[in-house]
Amino acid sequence: MKKANKKFNAAIIIIGNEVLSGRTQDVNVLNISNWLNSLGVKLTEVRIIPDIEYIIVNTVNEIRKKFNYVFTTGGIGPTHDDITAKSIAKAFNVKYSYHPEAYKILENYYKKGKFNIGRKKMAKMPKNSFLIYNPSSAAPGFFIKNVYCLPGVPSILKSMLGGLNNKIIGGKKIISKTLSLRTVESEISAPLTKVQTKYKNVEIGSYPFFKQGKIGVSLVLRSNKLVLIEKCINEILKFINKKKIKIIKNS
Amino acid sequence: MKKANKKFNAAIIIIGNEVLSGRTQDVNVLNISNWLNSLGVKLTEVRIIPDIEYIIVNTVNEIRKKFNYVFTTGGIGPTHDDITAKSIAKAFNVKYSYHPEAYKILENYYKKGKFNIGRKKMAKMPKNSFLIYNPSSAAPGFFIKNVYCLPGVPSILKSMLGGLNNKIIGGKKIISKTLSLRTVESEISAPLTKVQTKYKNVEIGSYPFFKQGKIGVSLVLRSNKLVLIEKCINEILKFINKKKIKIIKNS
Repeated sequence: MKKANKKFNAAIIIIGNEVLSGRTQDVNVLNISNWLNSLGVKLTEVRIIPDIEYIIVNTVNEIRKKFNYVFTTGGIGPTHDDITAKSIAKAFNVKYSYHPEAYKILENYYKKGKFNIGRKKMAKMPKNSFLIYNPSSAAPGFFIKNVYCLPGVPSILKSMLGGLNNKIIGGKKIISKTLSLRTVESEISAPLTKVQTKYKNVEIGSYPFFKQGKIGVSLVLRSNKLVLIEKCINEILKFINKKKIKIIKNS
Repeated sequence: MKKANKKFNAAIIIIGNEVLSGRTQDVNVLNISNWLNSLGVKLTEVRIIPDIEYIIVNTVNEIRKKFNYVFTTGGIGPTHDDITAKSIAKAFNVKYSYHPEAYKILENYYKKGKFNIGRKKMAKMPKNSFLIYNPSSAAPGFFIKNVYCLPGVPSILKSMLGGLNNKIIGGKKIISKTLSLRTVESEISAPLTKVQTKYKNVEIGSYPFFKQGKIGVSLVLRSNKLVLIEKCINEILKFINKKKIKIIKNS
């Protein structure tokens, strides 16, 4: 089982000066991660890098060997700072040229005489890429081997993920249960450590929170075996009840 | 001047299964980045990695050699999944032991008899670390050489950054101006490329947006020389006016 999960992992490369500069709050990691969960693929690393060709090339070439799936976001638009497609072509050492189908899609999308050089650029991709269709704004993403290139605009990216469902082979779906408690982490750390040591195949995360002036801790249990999660929760409930800690949520 | 900026760069390592799993939306990158901007330090890379010791050790050792400043977030609490301090000690090959001042701070903070093993753990750090004081919840962060370890809870992290202002040596402050236009990227990509080619020391980013049903493009110009940014904006305004594109914001 461990092996199966190891087989289906993914990384995201966020290509975006705007995220590094503090201008834009990334939300694509969250969206892609939740979509991958539903397919039984575990997001295992994220990198946020600037729009610089050699950095994109080196990062893609390092990451694509380590993970089953690599998703890039950003840099596939029409402007000078959109250098993802060209950089990916360089990473794979293939030509960067017009994709005939992408060219046709974009040509049909724009009014006659409006298919200018910037718009044509969005049809340029690494040779032999496959398209990722875009139901929101026509300009497609693409994938080559295990590298999937998506746009940076969250709403457009989200609209394109569904089209990839049958391309991504995942393992058993990862199940997650949350137990929210009216306590502080240091009250429960010792018995919780014992439970984690006993159940190595359940990932137990502990996250303090502050809500409406009150503090609490959420325990998040993740595994692809529901029965193991339930056993864990039962053991946690034992010491929670003994300590008379209030349960806020068990879902 | 280019050299000076190169000298003051930083990377963030987000240590957090909760971010990778899609449970938690990270906001620490944005907060740290904006704080670094105010100090004249450029955030140049971010990694999000899981709570796994060897990954933390390898990532920290790779990253700390590449950047002037490295910030880690998360994993310095009292529970079993808080392994940042221990991992950093391993990365630097130093002892992981009680920091006398941190121990005292925590001992004073908790009521008598309440300074349990979980709470004591928060005083354990790489030997010879310096403390980063915590005005919100006592438990300090720490730094060793150029690696600064902060908590994952955004409000606590933010409250601790101020205490580091005099520790971080930055360069000239990076200035950012935004020009928001009622247009689409592909309308302006060709003349914009020319401006970027002419002004290599200004970083021009182009970001499409959708707001209240209307589309537009924000151009973000960044440099540590205001005069260069202004020259760029003037050249952009020339073709914007010629194309009769509406300016929504110029700030």
